[in-house]
Amino acid sequence: MAEETVTGAEALMAAAVQKGVRVCFANPGTTEMPLVAALDRTPDVRGVLGLQENVCTGAADGYARITGRAAMTLLHLGPGLANGLANLHNARRAHTPVVNVVGDHTSWHLPYDAPLTSDIAALATTVGSAFTVAGREDIDAATRAAIDDAHRRPGVATLIVPADHQQDLAAAVPVASRSAAESAGRRHARVDSGRVKEVATRIRSAGASTVLILGGDALTRRGQQAAGRIAALTGAALFSETFPAVAERGAGLPAIDRLPYFPEAAIAALGDRDLVVIAGAEEPVAYFGYAGLPSRLARPETLRSLARPGEDAEEALLELADLLGAAEPADSITAPKAGGLPDPDAPLTGATVGQTVAACLPEDAIVSVEGGTCGYPFYTASAGASAHTALTNTGGAIGQGLPVALGAAIAAPDRPVIALQSDGSGLYTAQALWSMSRENVNVTVLIAANHTYNVLRTELNRHGESAFGPKAAALTSLSDPRVDWIALAAGYGVPGRRATTVAELSQALQAAIASDGPHLIEMSL
Amino acid sequence: MAEETVTGAEALMAAAVQKGVRVCFANPGTTEMPLVAALDRTPDVRGVLGLQENVCTGAADGYARITGRAAMTLLHLGPGLANGLANLHNARRAHTPVVNVVGDHTSWHLPYDAPLTSDIAALATTVGSAFTVAGREDIDAATRAAIDDAHRRPGVATLIVPADHQQDLAAAVPVASRSAAESAGRRHARVDSGRVKEVATRIRSAGASTVLILGGDALTRRGQQAAGRIAALTGAALFSETFPAVAERGAGLPAIDRLPYFPEAAIAALGDRDLVVIAGAEEPVAYFGYAGLPSRLARPETLRSLARPGEDAEEALLELADLLGAAEPADSITAPKAGGLPDPDAPLTGATVGQTVAACLPEDAIVSVEGGTCGYPFYTASAGASAHTALTNTGGAIGQGLPVALGAAIAAPDRPVIALQSDGSGLYTAQALWSMSRENVNVTVLIAANHTYNVLRTELNRHGESAFGPKAAALTSLSDPRVDWIALAAGYGVPGRRATTVAELSQALQAAIASDGPHLIEMSL
Repeated sequence: MAEETVTGAEALMAAAVQKGVRVCFANPGTTEMPLVAALDRTPDVRGVLGLQENVCTGAADGYARITGRAAMTLLHLGPGLANGLANLHNARRAHTPVVNVVGDHTSWHLPYDAPLTSDIAALATTVGSAFTVAGREDIDAATRAAIDDAHRRPGVATLIVPADHQQDLAAAVPVASRSAAESAGRRHARVDSGRVKEVATRIRSAGASTVLILGGDALTRRGQQAAGRIAALTGAALFSETFPAVAERGAGLPAIDRLPYFPEAAIAALGDRDLVVIAGAEEPVAYFGYAGLPSRLARPETLRSLARPGEDAEEALLELADLLGAAEPADSITAPKAGGLPDPDAPLTGATVGQTVAACLPEDAIVSVEGGTCGYPFYTASAGASAHTALTNTGGAIGQGLPVALGAAIAAPDRPVIALQSDGSGLYTAQALWSMSRENVNVTVLIAANHTYNVLRTELNRHGESAFGPKAAALTSLSDPRVDWIALAAGYGVPGRRATTVAELSQALQAAIASDGPHLIEMSL
Repeated sequence: MAEETVTGAEALMAAAVQKGVRVCFANPGTTEMPLVAALDRTPDVRGVLGLQENVCTGAADGYARITGRAAMTLLHLGPGLANGLANLHNARRAHTPVVNVVGDHTSWHLPYDAPLTSDIAALATTVGSAFTVAGREDIDAATRAAIDDAHRRPGVATLIVPADHQQDLAAAVPVASRSAAESAGRRHARVDSGRVKEVATRIRSAGASTVLILGGDALTRRGQQAAGRIAALTGAALFSETFPAVAERGAGLPAIDRLPYFPEAAIAALGDRDLVVIAGAEEPVAYFGYAGLPSRLARPETLRSLARPGEDAEEALLELADLLGAAEPADSITAPKAGGLPDPDAPLTGATVGQTVAACLPEDAIVSVEGGTCGYPFYTASAGASAHTALTNTGGAIGQGLPVALGAAIAAPDRPVIALQSDGSGLYTAQALWSMSRENVNVTVLIAANHTYNVLRTELNRHGESAFGPKAAALTSLSDPRVDWIALAAGYGVPGRRATTVAELSQALQAAIASDGPHLIEMSL
């Protein structure tokens, strides 16, 4: 029997399929053309085009947050990777598996320093690991190694593939069974029982002076229910980390708000506690350093880590709850049902938007939250909303919300997705709207249009600049001209409408959710 | 007399002003707020906001191409710099001075690895040099060193400034006289006379089998006129490098087309010549490596460098022309005047667009050219157009044309600027339209809307993929949905109209040029 001969690009795609890759968020160029051609011979991988690379990388992050499995991105040399780095930074902070495939010049062309030549590996290692394919025979193993590495840490892995190695022919590697492939998702190291016992002992001692901070896989339904049992038993307070990658929320879960963003409030919440237990997150530190305030938000001597990122926080919480003898979940640990709509004629503010979206939230929705104006109030209001999944900006590189919503919608086509998006951050990657239109995903984009970089005005105030000069005012303003989001959406093929009151927003939101495909609502704040 | 006390941010701005910085293209965040506040106390520096960092860095490149002096960018930590890296890659390839000022966390907060922490210097060094401010007392010297370094190489220098050092107070450094400051522009090393003599000897011997390839400062009016004299005397052929940063073009200059992009044509132009003299550029190499074609486009033994980038190519060409005894410029060396408009009813194609824009070009225009569809035909057609300056994409990181046009227009408010822009590349940084509107710059944006990544289809064909599969077709298509550039422009506050014939384009173009502020014309190809 004649051996099948395939290109390096085809071998890469075959290895990726075997490792469970099903989607490629792509913005290819010349050096990726053999991979594009190979995609057409790889029915198991869907290609999704982004008009700018940060759309692709953010979408891969969103996809992996929902599925637990890495999507592939396909990017063009160093500049293509550079354009996608900001959302890879967020993915790194989210501990999300993402595999970038980046073409490079044909290997024998690299020494000539052609215009597009740059140090791709140096860029890649700022957000994760880099694997460079050294030859055609290397492709299968390098692809598997990159995907495994992305899942193992979990984090961002970049596979750099010179164009000639993509084109070269060699014998195909026999494909193992699909069932083995599908198991290539995230895996977590089990937490040592001794550590769980030690935390239990400390909680028994600290009692109601305990705080539990949940992140990562502590924010699954099971993880939160276990935390709720512990809280009901001990009186411990519960927070999620300030910017969780994925948090289950709403009906049937305890009310767990986020640890406050500004350090004064976070320190107030943690500073007088005897015990701060962290599960699935790193130690909470201030987002920025402010003179006179500590970087570490809890007193170091009160900190205990139950599970670090990459460890199985959910199981550790269940074990902890059982050890403590915490009762099965009762109504007392679930958040009260969210209030109804605010006054229909009320103008839109952060608070009324948060309440309206929480009240209108369909069952099993995914909500991508970026920006503070409506994001914090929504989070507070939605503890008692319909069961849903919240995704937040983990790394502070703004322009993440729309791409993550796109990726989440590709991952879960049957779930409604809502992108609750501040306008300033949305403008970094507005191109995501076009991919939403092309893929006809069920995303409702809610733009909080206050036409300012509001967080920066708050920060200027914190710096004692209460009277802004004209440049500070201009550099924190998105007016003059006002961005017209309805027009932008139309430009990218997404129908849009404007809402100025609670009634208009709730009607527009319900209509958008009820009909297929993407919609945008510009909320005039 | 009491010593004046200023913040680090104010000291930075004072040093920048003294070194000739007049514009700051900014997309600041929390860690840059003291610098934003300092801008308001620095009347000599204009702040221009970009909605995404690649707009800022590309605009700084365009500004420096026209003025020869660095503009400052103001970017937010690692992710902000990452978002602007692609156009910094282009600036690096253009040998353009650009100074990035990037805020970092307060120095004592850095060890805690807060969400936005990343390796900023590692990112910066992929495109140039990095200077990290170690303390308040360091700011003045570090700012001067970064600006000097950007001008000296010339290239991209990044100054990383922890937020606390921006805020700290210290005595102001006395400001030297402004006249010294203004001299901080680009300077070029003089080419050794021995090298010029050696090249002259070789040209005398090779005669009409000589090719001169001009780049960098060989493409000034004086440089090209000297090259034209040499060509008239010897029969030598003239080319500019394929992607010049700045090229003077049109009336009074010889017809100098660009070295062809694809290697077959470039090799045909150079391969049988006895002598290939390069002035102001590096050795020409293929843009990408193609199997069976060499990377080096000229035979190595025929190459002679008259002036490398950073050396004074213009003076070297003048000296060379004099040494050869080339006569003063005559009509014979200037390009024939461009033809008139094509048939007014002709549909828009690359060729008719190129001819129409060349025929309508106002005197002293600046034309930012990005993309091949109309870019190459325009360049060929415009040799005999009104005198103008052409700026092209030097590094292949697409999304450069609109930001460069913005920066050029800020640099030269009295000159009409035209951005001849392919649609695919324009979509990477369409946010530049908003800054054009806000600054009310005289930029006419011409979008070549063929709704494909056409170069990629050409490359797929070159790879032998003549029948595209559905994914290859989709991943190289900007249809489904068609981007509506008129709507996008409206979203960003720029008036737009559509043109489908030569007559419509010429009318729209003339109307746009005649009225103030930015305009966009979507050319349906």
